[in-house]
Amino acid sequence: MLNNIQIILVGITHPGNIGAAARAMKTMELSQMRLVQPKIFPSVEATARACGADDILANAQIFDTLEDSIKDCHLVIGTSTRARHLIWPTLTPKACAEKSLQSAGKVAILFGREQSGLTNEELEFCHFLVQIATNPIFSSLNVASAVQIIAYELHESLKNQSEVGETLIELEDPPASAEMMGHFYKHLEQTLIDIEFLDPEKPKHLMRRLHRLFNRIQPIESEVNILRGILTAAQKAKSS
Amino acid sequence: MLNNIQIILVGITHPGNIGAAARAMKTMELSQMRLVQPKIFPSVEATARACGADDILANAQIFDTLEDSIKDCHLVIGTSTRARHLIWPTLTPKACAEKSLQSAGKVAILFGREQSGLTNEELEFCHFLVQIATNPIFSSLNVASAVQIIAYELHESLKNQSEVGETLIELEDPPASAEMMGHFYKHLEQTLIDIEFLDPEKPKHLMRRLHRLFNRIQPIESEVNILRGILTAAQKAKSS
Repeated sequence: MLNNIQIILVGITHPGNIGAAARAMKTMELSQMRLVQPKIFPSVEATARACGADDILANAQIFDTLEDSIKDCHLVIGTSTRARHLIWPTLTPKACAEKSLQSAGKVAILFGREQSGLTNEELEFCHFLVQIATNPIFSSLNVASAVQIIAYELHESLKNQSEVGETLIELEDPPASAEMMGHFYKHLEQTLIDIEFLDPEKPKHLMRRLHRLFNRIQPIESEVNILRGILTAAQKAKSS
Repeated sequence: MLNNIQIILVGITHPGNIGAAARAMKTMELSQMRLVQPKIFPSVEATARACGADDILANAQIFDTLEDSIKDCHLVIGTSTRARHLIWPTLTPKACAEKSLQSAGKVAILFGREQSGLTNEELEFCHFLVQIATNPIFSSLNVASAVQIIAYELHESLKNQSEVGETLIELEDPPASAEMMGHFYKHLEQTLIDIEFLDPEKPKHLMRRLHRLFNRIQPIESEVNILRGILTAAQKAKSS
């Protein structure tokens, strides 16, 4: 169950934090770690701080881009300690855990850089944000501590489910994968250029808003196919 | 409220853990740290790991015995990751938080040594134990991580006392009205006919699916305006 959950650490500078995150994960029965552009890895310091969770470090997958790291994931949740003035559904750690455990497909939970967290561009890939409520005048949560809290809530939720004997409702049709959505966004962008709605000279703001809009939907595969059918029809209409 | 809670670290060997615990406390608005026989304190390493929570280290009180450190406390709770075959009322972290916040007097929450935790003798001082549920084959929770989880639950409990809703959805703008959505659906349907994606002879199933999809999004007004702009562009592209 918890093996569905991918803990993805983005741009971590201090290898000790990677080790401490592995230890935090293993205490809560999480096992799947992915690293996007770690500054130093593997490292003696990471292994020392893992304190016996070496297997998680040994199995960690390394990626050059965030996009590659989430390709097989159907639900992407980004952690943030700052309130962002953007339209994003924001979850508490507990709600994040419940939503993650309900997902039929793989789930990615993203943790950003020590100093600056995740960029707005990286947040574009997220269906939800999870915000750990902190001291308004001291929100400097260590990244491994953030992993610990999120992992703790996942572990608690799973425990509560088995105590209550709750069964999971499996979706007949899973939400489209990040890879499928990536293709959809490219197709959407090209169509908007073709029908002259989007100026390729200054495209960024519009596409970001559309990302946010469609990520909020979490369309299932058959819906993405309908949407892409519409895009193709619009492209043909233009060229006919 | 949280100033009533004394976080008491007993026999900590690594000064880095004291600093990390101070940081964990401060992120969750706890301020009262007490140290019983720390091996090394103060120390540069503790200050480095505190990452700005120096005030907590500076104000930490140091004691020779656990007994002295809890003299003014009315409720004493000891943390334990191991199940102890002893007759002790054991709380979850959440129940520990609720009980602590209900206490009129000072509360002590004890955290033991890195390797061996609290001794049975020290547990004798406790009214309750709090047990953080962990992986049965890897219960090696770092002491600062344990502080982080207990502090997080205290902070969440305090927050829940003043708030109700668990899941916040932050929107700059309210979702579009049903009337606005009605106009959008008509515009969408007409566009799909114009670009020959929709056959007006048998339109029902497709439009129903698109309704479901866009209703799930609950777009805000500015998003509906973008979507209608795209529809208009597609219609123009066809007729041009």
